[in-house]
Amino acid sequence: MKNVEPKTLKGFRDFLPKETKKRQYAIDTLKKVFESYGFEPLETPALEYEEVLLGKYGEEGDKLMYRFVDNGGRRVALRYDQTVPLSRVVAQYSPRGGAGQNELSMPFKRYQIQPVWRAENTQKGRFREFLQCDVDIVGTTSPLSDAEVIAVATNALKTLGFKDYKVLINDRNNFSYFQESMNLSQEQVMAVIRAIDKLKKIGRDGVINELKEKGFSYDQAATVIDSISNIKPTEYILEIMQNLKKMGIKEERIQFYPTLARGLDYYTDLIFEIEIEGYTAGSVCGGGRYDKLIAMFSDKDIPAVGFAFGFDRLIEAMDALKLFPDNLETTKVLVTIFSKELKEKSIEISSRLRSNNINTEIYLDENAKLEKQLKYADQKGIPYVVVIGPEEAEKNQITLKNMQTREQKTFNQEGLVKELA
Amino acid sequence: MKNVEPKTLKGFRDFLPKETKKRQYAIDTLKKVFESYGFEPLETPALEYEEVLLGKYGEEGDKLMYRFVDNGGRRVALRYDQTVPLSRVVAQYSPRGGAGQNELSMPFKRYQIQPVWRAENTQKGRFREFLQCDVDIVGTTSPLSDAEVIAVATNALKTLGFKDYKVLINDRNNFSYFQESMNLSQEQVMAVIRAIDKLKKIGRDGVINELKEKGFSYDQAATVIDSISNIKPTEYILEIMQNLKKMGIKEERIQFYPTLARGLDYYTDLIFEIEIEGYTAGSVCGGGRYDKLIAMFSDKDIPAVGFAFGFDRLIEAMDALKLFPDNLETTKVLVTIFSKELKEKSIEISSRLRSNNINTEIYLDENAKLEKQLKYADQKGIPYVVVIGPEEAEKNQITLKNMQTREQKTFNQEGLVKELA
Repeated sequence: MKNVEPKTLKGFRDFLPKETKKRQYAIDTLKKVFESYGFEPLETPALEYEEVLLGKYGEEGDKLMYRFVDNGGRRVALRYDQTVPLSRVVAQYSPRGGAGQNELSMPFKRYQIQPVWRAENTQKGRFREFLQCDVDIVGTTSPLSDAEVIAVATNALKTLGFKDYKVLINDRNNFSYFQESMNLSQEQVMAVIRAIDKLKKIGRDGVINELKEKGFSYDQAATVIDSISNIKPTEYILEIMQNLKKMGIKEERIQFYPTLARGLDYYTDLIFEIEIEGYTAGSVCGGGRYDKLIAMFSDKDIPAVGFAFGFDRLIEAMDALKLFPDNLETTKVLVTIFSKELKEKSIEISSRLRSNNINTEIYLDENAKLEKQLKYADQKGIPYVVVIGPEEAEKNQITLKNMQTREQKTFNQEGLVKELA
Repeated sequence: MKNVEPKTLKGFRDFLPKETKKRQYAIDTLKKVFESYGFEPLETPALEYEEVLLGKYGEEGDKLMYRFVDNGGRRVALRYDQTVPLSRVVAQYSPRGGAGQNELSMPFKRYQIQPVWRAENTQKGRFREFLQCDVDIVGTTSPLSDAEVIAVATNALKTLGFKDYKVLINDRNNFSYFQESMNLSQEQVMAVIRAIDKLKKIGRDGVINELKEKGFSYDQAATVIDSISNIKPTEYILEIMQNLKKMGIKEERIQFYPTLARGLDYYTDLIFEIEIEGYTAGSVCGGGRYDKLIAMFSDKDIPAVGFAFGFDRLIEAMDALKLFPDNLETTKVLVTIFSKELKEKSIEISSRLRSNNINTEIYLDENAKLEKQLKYADQKGIPYVVVIGPEEAEKNQITLKNMQTREQKTFNQEGLVKELA
């Protein structure tokens, strides 16, 4: 019979119910926070024309992208992130004068929670299919919008239950000012950004070594690190910080961090990352302003600012800090079936409980022993079990068993509904 | 600047916020119903080994499947439905004696709502990426489980607001009995099943013509149609119908329909479809029992029964019958910014409203004219707008504008919270 080994691809995961419920809980919580700020959901296709994605994520990105030729000979690629598809959407549906059906009103505030695919090296504990959770504001350069995305991110973390987190922020323009003042070539400043971004991870000596490999002398490298470390926040950053304070974000949560660089991609101004105390695997959130990306698809510049949560890290951190509710089981009661003859009684009470908004499962095998049915309730973490045996049936009664205390009580139908409601 | 035309692939769709909210509303409603019966969420990867999917959907399926070779030289395919991945999951994680961490307790009741991909001919108004919404019970042959999936489907439709729907049910075994009694070859009975399934669509003459093309005489074809149309429900079907009655499903909603065939795929016993009155594009739900599919991945037979909603049809039918709530806008109030000087007042009241669980958006451009801000609220369908001008600021007051009636009232902060809560 069996002709195929049941297995998943490396880097791809099945989410069984227990895990899916945890993820769903986190997603629902995040959505509520995003919507409390007026962000609206957007969904884009899993497949895009290859040319839409190619060249937007650097050489590395093009290499890790899932690309293929479809049955119609089109070069296509799987979603690699949600920022480039957002940029395409904004260019495609942004107002052209009238307020058409298919046009977006600006500022456009959207969230997007969909999987992305990257052929990562799975040995690093990375996955090839993972969920991204993005929040962006398109169409305004106001520092109020920079502050708002940070406020949304911290509020989301707070609502998930995180108590200690820190927002590191910087202005990408600092690196340009620095390049000018130090009279560095474009290549040199790129090397500096790449190296300095790792300061926390590999330390001062590590950065110096990396810069030496790129042709800097020891003294030059040390000067570079010290100069960057001593950069003061720009007016723009100070205004964002002011706004955040007004928004009720405690000052000690925000730290100006001049060595933060966030790789080499599309950011133009604000960049930020959020770290969680007690979770050392890396930042759970990163974002910034990217005012030039949308113009790659459009005849005009459209500014944008936003962030993405690393959803897997968020789940991992929540697990580590025990932030998930104890029981995410949604079924309240299992109605057992005592025998084929008494099946109808069990069906009847199940329907009645359910119509009273009590999530009710009926055991779906009228020939199973009661013991097996109780074990099923235990395995699924269902808190209550209903038993209607011959004695109960005769007296028109129902026995309710609390699966935690193993206590039993007897009710009539109405009483049972009241007890469980 | 612009170097790529922003466009989507044929058959693929962006869902802008208005549409996504409607879809989300339907999904949330469906989930609640599924969970009220104890079904739990499952998620499987978008990509599977090609061999897991190939040959499970007939020749047509293999042709429409998105298949490619990944960077590691593996032959992979995009999810084509959710029943085959479920079958793989059940074989992969089904109990092997102990009740291990990664094992499923049986009966396993799961729902799954994920996109699938098929390179369909888009001219028929079909999409190449579409959402499927599946409910299945694995591990029991009890007719109670056949009845439960039908009950879940009808209850879901009722909860979405549909009033008139009909469940057509049949037993696939009838075609085997019929094959024996009529002494037909396997090939002939396949032709009969294929043709008779279209009875409703192409009529009696259409079916006769199709059978004549397959070598049947006119008389033979007519006899075949009449014989099948006169088949009586099996004991098994009668028991399912009895169970449904006990579950509170009205008798007139269920119709034994001996010519229902549901294509030629993996169904073994019960098959059913649900039609909605006033929506003629086709059935919105189809399913049945498939007791042999999981064994393609497993050393043992594991029975299963379930259904899938055609999500796009469901949305289309809900639109046609006006079943969506009038306003799915989640933002209750837009706080405008009168001027840069008064920005802080607006930030302050926004945070206060939000912390009172009132979904509040602040307009993110302190330089925009009030008129533009009001227009934004109108476009997004936000019902209330807050204005704090110099006069209000001085008196520590807030003006609230009802965007529908255009009525204005003035409050202090506390009063405003009360009014909007």
